Amino acid sequence: MFKVKVFIKRRPSILDPQGKAVEKGAELLGLTNIKNTRIGKFIEFNVDTNNRIDAEKEVNDYCKKLLANPIMEDFEFSLEEVK
Amino acid sequence: MFKVKVFIKRRPSILDPQGKAVEKGAELLGLTNIKNTRIGKFIEFNVDTNNRIDAEKEVNDYCKKLLANPIMEDFEFSLEEVK
Repeated sequence: MFKVKVFIKRRPSILDPQGKAVEKGAELLGLTNIKNTRIGKFIEFNVDTNNRIDAEKEVNDYCKKLLANPIMEDFEFSLEEVK
Repeated sequence: MFKVKVFIKRRPSILDPQGKAVEKGAELLGLTNIKNTRIGKFIEFNVDTNNRIDAEKEVNDYCKKLLANPIMEDFEFSLEEVK
């Protein structure tokens, strides 16, 4: 079995209004050094197979077809084998 | 300046209906080995100070007061100094 971590970020060219909004909140709370907040997703799951190649293919499909929006997001993932 | 990465996860005891829903989608697409999907947040920003202690304090406040929901989420962060 593999334990997988996926990181999804908006492309740098895409605005992040959610990040801007929280940052504005930070400023109002006196946290004035916080800049350029970008909010993405962090997804964890297991892939129930012992073959790394199969697992990577399945994770890649999962990210492309369901987890990330290919128009405005990029993704990265890491696999760690667990017994 | 510090570049900060924050990871926010739901506590293991808290259900993740969003994760369950995407996982059901994966199953329907034939990705049947994917199990136990948990969806969290991955947040990046800069802290504009040269003092690591101040930066950590500010990041901790930002997470506690705005980014994470202390009732059902846990957070971790890492700081990397950049020139």
